[in-house]
Amino acid sequence: MNRIQLAKHIQEKNSYLCVGLDTNPDLLPYHLKGKKDAVFEFNKAIIDATLPLCVSYKINTAFYESRGTEGWDDMARTVDYIPATHFKIADAKRGDIGNTSSQYAKAFFETIPFDAVTVAPYMGEDSIRPFLEYDDKWTIVLGLTSNKGSIDFQQQLLATHGAHPSQFDFLYERVIKKVCSWGSPDNLMLVIGATKPGEIKKIRALVPDYFFLVPGVGFQGGSLEQVSEHGKNDQTGILINVSRAIIYASHLENFADEAKIIASQYQYEMSTFLGKNINS
Amino acid sequence: MNRIQLAKHIQEKNSYLCVGLDTNPDLLPYHLKGKKDAVFEFNKAIIDATLPLCVSYKINTAFYESRGTEGWDDMARTVDYIPATHFKIADAKRGDIGNTSSQYAKAFFETIPFDAVTVAPYMGEDSIRPFLEYDDKWTIVLGLTSNKGSIDFQQQLLATHGAHPSQFDFLYERVIKKVCSWGSPDNLMLVIGATKPGEIKKIRALVPDYFFLVPGVGFQGGSLEQVSEHGKNDQTGILINVSRAIIYASHLENFADEAKIIASQYQYEMSTFLGKNINS
Repeated sequence: MNRIQLAKHIQEKNSYLCVGLDTNPDLLPYHLKGKKDAVFEFNKAIIDATLPLCVSYKINTAFYESRGTEGWDDMARTVDYIPATHFKIADAKRGDIGNTSSQYAKAFFETIPFDAVTVAPYMGEDSIRPFLEYDDKWTIVLGLTSNKGSIDFQQQLLATHGAHPSQFDFLYERVIKKVCSWGSPDNLMLVIGATKPGEIKKIRALVPDYFFLVPGVGFQGGSLEQVSEHGKNDQTGILINVSRAIIYASHLENFADEAKIIASQYQYEMSTFLGKNINS
Repeated sequence: MNRIQLAKHIQEKNSYLCVGLDTNPDLLPYHLKGKKDAVFEFNKAIIDATLPLCVSYKINTAFYESRGTEGWDDMARTVDYIPATHFKIADAKRGDIGNTSSQYAKAFFETIPFDAVTVAPYMGEDSIRPFLEYDDKWTIVLGLTSNKGSIDFQQQLLATHGAHPSQFDFLYERVIKKVCSWGSPDNLMLVIGATKPGEIKKIRALVPDYFFLVPGVGFQGGSLEQVSEHGKNDQTGILINVSRAIIYASHLENFADEAKIIASQYQYEMSTFLGKNINS
């Protein structure tokens, strides 16, 4: 899916919601727990219920890998089930030396045909380049994450030779500047956590044209309103992910209906920020 | 496997060689290509041939994930095939927010029972802690990697408030200091690339007791002698990984014999650095 198509889906759905399918078998509705195919059946029901309200699904690979081969099979089947109208993200946070990153790109762009994969930047340019080589596929690089540990390295100041300390960059700013020079707004996005709305404003000023994938709204406490206000650009430019607050809205048989209600609330709020009040 | 057991195996084998099973189906010997179970059969033959010469096997998950469910199955079967005498590393470079890293830890310490997993540090403390909670399992954090891209972020200087610029740390030094304060030499190791021997010496002085996993010898050009001289400590303290130079030593039917010859050369050289000349 390219940028124009993604923008079109956002306009049509009046939504920039991404539903996170972080499906943990231990947290399934009581009637599904332990059943054959429980994870895939759960994902299907969530997708069916939320399809008109969101533009994207994000699968965090960890929740599937923890179940080994069976989990990978569920991941592949889930991606296959999501229609081509929706932007499919592998939240995999991969990254390795060049010839190895090529294998990860193959895993998430070819073997399982996601539209996008998240990538960790620590290993630098040659770890990211192989992902950028695919047409109409997206590399989503960790910029500033939503978790507490982002303080440990991401929010540390980098010294710049000859510059006054007031001009020093945080590591995450340097990462954003560098990776945006390797990709373009047509093949690269950034993960920017919702728990730092002040920073989102600064980052939007730094890279006006790039899409942000924003986790941290919902369970992690980020504000949808603040993220939308500070993160949006002329072409919307943000995908806001909500996982647990939607998929675990209920643990009863009506879990998909409850998920739909919560997703509708997010979609409605987003439609107001998009300047339109038609709840599709 | 705990530290005492690992040290014992190094003494017994007179080797600190780790064989990297980065098995790429496109690079298999001609007679195996396209055959059913080719990757697993290849891995078995390499393991059988190198078992007396090495103390560890490292599986880079990318080469298995690129083949989807079938690849994950091969990874699980390969780990199952490696005997308990050998230290099994998942070179996965994972890391996510806490509840997600717990799922990765489950994937590589329980579902597939590796002894160790490599982890990327960008997301900080809560992304690494869940891996450290397992007894007799190891978290191997990326410190300074062997690739060209390590210059982009790892080798950038971090400003320290109030410190003279001459005392500033490189990012990788800060990462090493921080992560070593979260773990101990009994559950944490560091990835230190062989392509920077001068840096290895500095890092060894900084953290005398921690094991280093050293990639970059062989195809990437790192020197075994220099790494051994600068990286070893009283308890050996290094595992040197060689992947392509061993497993792709030949593409003919005798590939396992050729792999054994190359592994023997590494093991012999290591035995001399261990101060013993008995080639087991």
